[in-house]
Amino acid sequence: MKTRKTRNGLLVSPIRDGTVIDHITGGEALNVLRMIGITGYTSESLSIATNVKSHKMGTKDIVKIENRELMKEEVDRIALIAPQASINIIRNYQVFEKKGVETPEFLVGVVRCPNPGCISSTTEPIESRFEVLAKGLRCLYCDWLITEDITSHIV
Amino acid sequence: MKTRKTRNGLLVSPIRDGTVIDHITGGEALNVLRMIGITGYTSESLSIATNVKSHKMGTKDIVKIENRELMKEEVDRIALIAPQASINIIRNYQVFEKKGVETPEFLVGVVRCPNPGCISSTTEPIESRFEVLAKGLRCLYCDWLITEDITSHIV
Repeated sequence: MKTRKTRNGLLVSPIRDGTVIDHITGGEALNVLRMIGITGYTSESLSIATNVKSHKMGTKDIVKIENRELMKEEVDRIALIAPQASINIIRNYQVFEKKGVETPEFLVGVVRCPNPGCISSTTEPIESRFEVLAKGLRCLYCDWLITEDITSHIV
Repeated sequence: MKTRKTRNGLLVSPIRDGTVIDHITGGEALNVLRMIGITGYTSESLSIATNVKSHKMGTKDIVKIENRELMKEEVDRIALIAPQASINIIRNYQVFEKKGVETPEFLVGVVRCPNPGCISSTTEPIESRFEVLAKGLRCLYCDWLITEDITSHIV
Protein backbone atom coordinates (compact mmCIF):
# COMPACT_ATOMS: atom_id res chain seq x y z
CA MET A 1 0.00 0.00 0.00
CA LYS A 2 1.25 3.45 -0.82
CA THR A 3 1.23 5.84 2.08
CA ARG A 4 2.30 9.40 2.21
CA LYS A 5 3.26 11.38 5.29
CA THR A 6 1.68 14.78 5.43
CA ARG A 7 2.75 17.51 7.76
CA ASN A 8 -0.12 16.68 10.05
CA GLY A 9 -0.71 12.99 9.78
CA LEU A 10 -0.83 9.89 7.73
CA LEU A 11 -2.61 9.82 4.44
CA VAL A 12 -3.98 6.39 3.82
CA SER A 13 -4.06 6.11 0.07
CA PRO A 14 -6.98 4.75 -1.86
CA ILE A 15 -6.75 1.07 -2.59
CA ARG A 16 -6.23 -0.16 -6.11
CA ASP A 17 -8.06 -3.46 -5.65
CA GLY A 18 -9.95 -4.78 -2.68
CA THR A 19 -12.89 -4.02 -0.42
CA VAL A 20 -13.98 -0.93 1.51
CA ILE A 21 -16.41 -1.54 4.36
CA ASP A 22 -17.96 1.75 5.42
CA HIS A 23 -20.68 2.74 7.91
CA ILE A 24 -19.75 0.04 10.38
CA THR A 25 -21.44 0.57 13.75
CA GLY A 26 -19.00 2.69 15.80
CA GLY A 27 -16.48 0.54 17.69
CA GLU A 28 -17.26 -2.73 15.87
CA ALA A 29 -14.41 -2.74 13.30
CA LEU A 30 -12.33 -5.39 15.08
CA ASN A 31 -15.41 -7.61 15.44
CA VAL A 32 -16.17 -7.15 11.74
CA LEU A 33 -12.62 -8.31 10.97
CA ARG A 34 -13.13 -11.37 13.17
CA MET A 35 -16.35 -12.16 11.33
CA ILE A 36 -14.38 -12.41 8.07
CA GLY A 37 -11.56 -14.40 9.61
CA ILE A 38 -8.99 -11.64 10.18
CA THR A 39 -7.51 -11.94 13.65
CA GLY A 40 -3.95 -11.83 14.92
CA TYR A 41 -1.24 -11.76 12.27
CA THR A 42 -2.46 -10.26 9.01
CA SER A 43 -0.85 -10.62 5.62
CA GLU A 44 -3.42 -8.21 4.15
CA SER A 45 -2.86 -4.48 3.88
CA LEU A 46 -5.58 -3.10 6.11
CA SER A 47 -6.54 0.46 6.96
CA ILE A 48 -8.90 0.82 9.88
CA ALA A 49 -10.40 3.85 11.57
CA THR A 50 -12.71 3.48 14.56
CA ASN A 51 -15.19 5.89 16.13
CA VAL A 52 -14.84 8.60 13.51
CA LYS A 53 -17.53 11.28 13.36
CA SER A 54 -20.35 10.55 10.95
CA HIS A 55 -23.21 12.86 10.04
CA LYS A 56 -25.47 9.90 9.44
CA MET A 57 -24.52 7.65 12.33
CA GLY A 58 -22.90 9.76 15.05
CA THR A 59 -19.79 7.61 14.98
CA LYS A 60 -18.76 4.89 12.59
CA ASP A 61 -15.84 2.63 11.75
CA ILE A 62 -14.24 2.13 8.35
CA VAL A 63 -12.17 -0.83 7.14
CA LYS A 64 -10.23 -1.09 3.87
CA ILE A 65 -8.80 -4.43 2.80
CA GLU A 66 -6.39 -4.47 -0.10
CA ASN A 67 -6.37 -7.29 -2.65
CA ARG A 68 -9.31 -9.15 -1.20
CA GLU A 69 -12.87 -9.08 -2.49
CA LEU A 70 -15.37 -10.19 0.11
CA MET A 71 -17.78 -12.93 -0.90
CA LYS A 72 -21.54 -12.67 -0.45
CA GLU A 73 -21.45 -15.05 2.51
CA GLU A 74 -18.80 -12.98 4.31
CA VAL A 75 -20.66 -9.76 3.63
CA ASP A 76 -23.85 -11.13 5.13
CA ARG A 77 -22.11 -12.22 8.32
CA ILE A 78 -21.17 -8.59 8.85
CA ALA A 79 -24.89 -7.75 8.99
CA LEU A 80 -25.14 -9.49 12.36
CA ILE A 81 -23.01 -6.85 14.07
CA ALA A 82 -23.09 -3.91 11.65
CA PRO A 83 -26.48 -3.89 9.91
CA GLN A 84 -25.88 -0.47 8.32
CA ALA A 85 -22.53 -1.38 6.76
CA SER A 86 -21.99 -0.67 3.07
CA ILE A 87 -19.48 -2.65 1.09
CA ASN A 88 -17.70 -1.45 -2.03
CA ILE A 89 -15.62 -3.78 -4.15
CA ILE A 90 -12.80 -1.81 -5.75
CA ARG A 91 -11.03 -2.73 -8.98
CA ASN A 92 -8.37 -0.49 -10.49
CA TYR A 93 -9.29 2.38 -8.09
CA GLN A 94 -12.94 2.35 -9.23
CA VAL A 95 -16.01 1.09 -7.40
CA PHE A 96 -16.73 -2.11 -9.30
CA GLU A 97 -19.68 -3.25 -7.21
CA LYS A 98 -21.69 -2.02 -4.22
CA LYS A 99 -23.08 -4.60 -1.86
CA GLY A 100 -25.54 -3.99 0.92
CA VAL A 101 -25.45 -6.38 3.83
CA GLU A 102 -28.43 -8.67 4.27
CA THR A 103 -29.03 -10.61 7.42
CA PRO A 104 -28.47 -14.24 6.46
CA GLU A 105 -31.14 -16.87 7.22
CA PHE A 106 -28.63 -19.44 8.43
CA LEU A 107 -25.05 -19.42 9.73
CA VAL A 108 -22.98 -22.52 9.04
CA GLY A 109 -19.63 -22.91 10.78
CA VAL A 110 -19.50 -19.29 11.93
CA VAL A 111 -20.62 -19.41 15.55
CA ARG A 112 -19.85 -22.03 18.20
CA CYS A 113 -22.82 -23.44 20.16
CA PRO A 114 -22.37 -22.53 23.86
CA ASN A 115 -24.17 -25.74 24.94
CA PRO A 116 -21.39 -28.16 25.94
CA GLY A 117 -23.78 -31.08 25.37
CA CYS A 118 -24.57 -30.06 21.79
CA ILE A 119 -23.27 -32.50 19.20
CA SER A 120 -21.71 -29.58 17.30
CA SER A 121 -19.63 -28.72 20.41
CA THR A 122 -18.04 -32.15 20.57
CA THR A 123 -15.11 -33.47 18.62
CA GLU A 124 -17.50 -34.88 16.00
CA PRO A 125 -16.77 -33.48 12.54
CA ILE A 126 -19.99 -31.46 12.48
CA GLU A 127 -20.21 -27.80 11.51
CA SER A 128 -22.36 -25.61 13.72
CA ARG A 129 -25.67 -24.51 12.18
CA PHE A 130 -27.74 -21.63 13.48
CA GLU A 131 -30.98 -20.10 12.30
CA VAL A 132 -30.95 -16.29 12.49
CA LEU A 133 -34.10 -15.09 14.26
CA ALA A 134 -35.16 -11.63 15.41
CA LYS A 135 -34.58 -12.69 19.03
CA GLY A 136 -31.15 -14.23 18.38
CA LEU A 137 -29.43 -17.28 16.89
CA ARG A 138 -31.01 -20.71 17.36
CA CYS A 139 -28.87 -23.84 17.17
CA LEU A 140 -30.41 -26.25 14.67
CA TYR A 141 -29.01 -29.24 16.59
CA CYS A 142 -29.99 -28.50 20.19
CA ASP A 143 -32.29 -25.42 20.04
CA TRP A 144 -29.92 -23.38 22.25
CA LEU A 145 -30.61 -19.67 21.78
CA ILE A 146 -27.82 -17.09 21.69
CA THR A 147 -29.45 -13.75 22.40
CA GLU A 148 -26.50 -11.49 23.15
CA ASP A 149 -22.80 -10.93 22.55
CA ILE A 150 -22.75 -12.93 19.33
CA THR A 151 -19.17 -11.95 18.58
CA SER A 152 -17.82 -13.81 21.62
CA HIS A 153 -19.16 -17.04 20.10
CA ILE A 154 -17.48 -16.67 16.72
CA VAL A 155 -15.46 -19.76 15.81
CA MET B 1 -11.48 12.05 15.78
CA LYS B 2 -11.58 14.49 12.91
CA THR B 3 -11.36 12.91 9.52
CA ARG B 4 -11.45 14.54 6.17
CA LYS B 5 -12.37 12.91 2.91
CA THR B 6 -9.99 13.69 0.10
CA ARG B 7 -10.70 13.01 -3.53
CA ASN B 8 -8.59 9.90 -3.38
CA GLY B 9 -8.94 8.49 0.06
CA LEU B 10 -9.33 9.01 3.73
CA LEU B 11 -7.06 11.38 5.56
CA VAL B 12 -6.57 10.14 9.06
CA SER B 13 -5.92 13.29 11.03
CA PRO B 14 -3.18 13.64 13.57
CA ILE B 15 -4.29 12.91 17.10
CA ARG B 16 -4.51 15.65 19.67
CA ASP B 17 -3.76 13.45 22.66
CA GLY B 18 -2.86 9.81 22.81
CA THR B 19 -0.26 7.32 21.63
CA VAL B 20 1.29 6.56 18.25
CA ILE B 21 2.93 3.14 17.91
CA ASP B 22 5.12 3.10 14.82
CA HIS B 23 7.52 0.56 13.30
CA ILE B 24 5.46 -2.42 14.38
CA THR B 25 6.64 -5.62 12.68
CA GLY B 26 4.54 -5.91 9.49
CA GLY B 27 1.24 -7.72 10.09
CA GLU B 28 1.38 -7.64 13.90
CA ALA B 29 -0.86 -4.61 14.58
CA LEU B 30 -3.87 -6.64 15.74
CA ASN B 31 -1.63 -8.68 18.05
CA VAL B 32 -0.14 -5.47 19.46
CA LEU B 33 -3.68 -4.29 20.19
CA ARG B 34 -4.43 -7.57 21.97
CA MET B 35 -1.28 -7.15 24.04
CA ILE B 36 -2.64 -3.86 25.39
CA GLY B 37 -6.13 -5.22 25.95
CA ILE B 38 -7.90 -3.91 22.85
CA THR B 39 -10.00 -6.67 21.30
CA GLY B 40 -13.54 -6.77 20.01
CA TYR B 41 -15.62 -3.67 20.67
CA THR B 42 -13.50 -0.55 21.04
CA SER B 43 -14.54 2.72 22.60
CA GLU B 44 -11.19 4.26 21.60
CA SER B 45 -10.63 6.13 18.37
CA LEU B 46 -8.05 3.97 16.62
CA SER B 47 -6.31 4.38 13.28
CA ILE B 48 -4.50 1.31 12.06
CA ALA B 49 -2.53 0.62 8.90
CA THR B 50 -0.97 -2.78 8.27
CA ASN B 51 1.76 -3.88 5.89
CA VAL B 52 2.64 -0.42 4.65
CA LYS B 53 5.92 0.03 2.82
CA SER B 54 8.83 1.08 5.02
CA HIS B 55 12.33 2.02 3.89
CA LYS B 56 13.74 0.75 7.15
CA MET B 57 11.73 -2.43 7.65
CA GLY B 58 10.32 -3.53 4.31
CA THR B 59 6.79 -3.48 5.68
CA LYS B 60 5.48 -2.17 8.96
CA ASP B 61 2.25 -1.52 10.83
CA ILE B 62 1.18 1.70 12.52
CA VAL B 63 -1.39 2.16 15.31
CA LYS B 64 -2.72 5.46 16.68
CA ILE B 65 -4.81 5.46 19.84
CA GLU B 66 -6.59 8.63 20.77
CA ASN B 67 -6.94 9.76 24.39
CA ARG B 68 -4.92 6.94 25.88
CA GLU B 69 -1.31 7.13 27.01
CA LEU B 70 0.31 3.72 27.22
CA MET B 71 2.01 2.85 30.50
CA LYS B 72 5.57 1.52 30.71
CA GLU B 73 4.29 -1.99 31.45
CA GLU B 74 2.04 -2.00 28.38
CA VAL B 75 4.81 -0.65 26.17
CA ASP B 76 7.20 -3.39 27.24
CA ARG B 77 4.68 -6.14 26.45
CA ILE B 78 4.70 -4.90 22.88
CA ALA B 79 8.43 -5.72 22.71
CA LEU B 80 7.58 -9.43 22.75
CA ILE B 81 6.00 -9.30 19.31
CA ALA B 82 7.32 -6.02 17.84
CA PRO B 83 10.82 -5.42 19.19
CA GLN B 84 11.48 -2.51 16.81
CA ALA B 85 8.34 -0.58 17.75
CA SER B 86 8.66 3.07 18.69
CA ILE B 87 6.09 4.73 20.90
CA ASN B 88 5.27 8.42 20.94
CA ILE B 89 3.05 9.92 23.59
CA ILE B 90 1.19 12.88 22.08
CA ARG B 91 -0.17 15.82 24.05
CA ASN B 92 -1.80 18.78 22.32
CA TYR B 93 -0.59 17.56 18.90
CA GLN B 94 3.06 17.54 20.04
CA VAL B 95 5.30 14.59 20.84
CA PHE B 96 5.44 14.79 24.63
CA GLU B 97 7.55 11.68 25.19
CA LYS B 98 9.26 9.02 23.11
CA LYS B 99 9.44 5.53 24.55
CA GLY B 100 11.45 2.65 23.19
CA VAL B 101 10.23 -0.83 23.96
CA GLU B 102 12.32 -2.97 26.27
CA THR B 103 11.80 -6.68 26.64
CA PRO B 104 10.44 -7.13 30.16
CA GLU B 105 12.09 -9.61 32.56
CA PHE B 106 8.80 -10.98 33.82
CA LEU B 107 5.20 -11.09 32.61
CA VAL B 108 2.50 -11.13 35.29
CA GLY B 109 -1.09 -11.85 34.28
CA VAL B 110 -0.42 -11.38 30.56
CA VAL B 111 -0.04 -14.92 29.22
CA ARG B 112 -1.99 -18.04 30.18
CA CYS B 113 0.07 -21.16 31.02
CA PRO B 114 -0.77 -23.90 28.48
CA ASN B 115 -0.16 -26.63 31.09
CA PRO B 116 -3.64 -27.68 32.27
CA GLY B 117 -2.10 -29.02 35.49
CA CYS B 118 -0.40 -25.72 36.37
CA ILE B 119 -1.83 -24.05 39.47
CA SER B 120 -2.14 -20.79 37.51
CA SER B 121 -4.44 -22.58 35.00
CA THR B 122 -6.93 -23.63 37.66
CA THR B 123 -9.70 -21.61 39.21
CA GLU B 124 -7.36 -20.57 42.04
CA PRO B 125 -7.01 -16.79 42.26
CA ILE B 126 -3.41 -16.85 41.06
CA GLU B 127 -2.02 -14.61 38.34
CA SER B 128 0.21 -16.27 35.76
CA ARG B 129 3.92 -15.44 36.06
CA PHE B 130 6.44 -16.01 33.30
CA GLU B 131 10.14 -15.28 33.04
CA VAL B 132 11.15 -13.93 29.63
CA LEU B 133 14.11 -15.90 28.30
CA ALA B 134 15.87 -15.83 24.93
CA LYS B 135 14.36 -19.24 24.13
CA GLY B 136 10.82 -18.31 25.19
CA LEU B 137 8.61 -17.75 28.21
CA ARG B 138 9.07 -19.96 31.29
CA CYS B 139 6.20 -20.43 33.74
CA LEU B 140 7.45 -19.65 37.25
CA TYR B 141 4.95 -22.12 38.75
CA CYS B 142 5.43 -25.25 36.64
CA ASP B 143 8.48 -24.55 34.41
CA TRP B 144 6.43 -24.98 31.21
CA LEU B 145 8.18 -23.30 28.31
CA ILE B 146 6.28 -21.40 25.62
CA THR B 147 8.63 -21.16 22.65
CA GLU B 148 6.34 -20.07 19.84
CA ASP B 149 3.11 -18.27 19.00
CA ILE B 150 3.09 -16.24 22.20
CA THR B 151 0.11 -14.19 21.08
CA SER B 152 -2.22 -17.18 21.09
CA HIS B 153 -1.59 -17.53 24.84
CA ILE B 154 -2.46 -13.95 25.76
CA VAL B 155 -5.06 -13.84 28.53
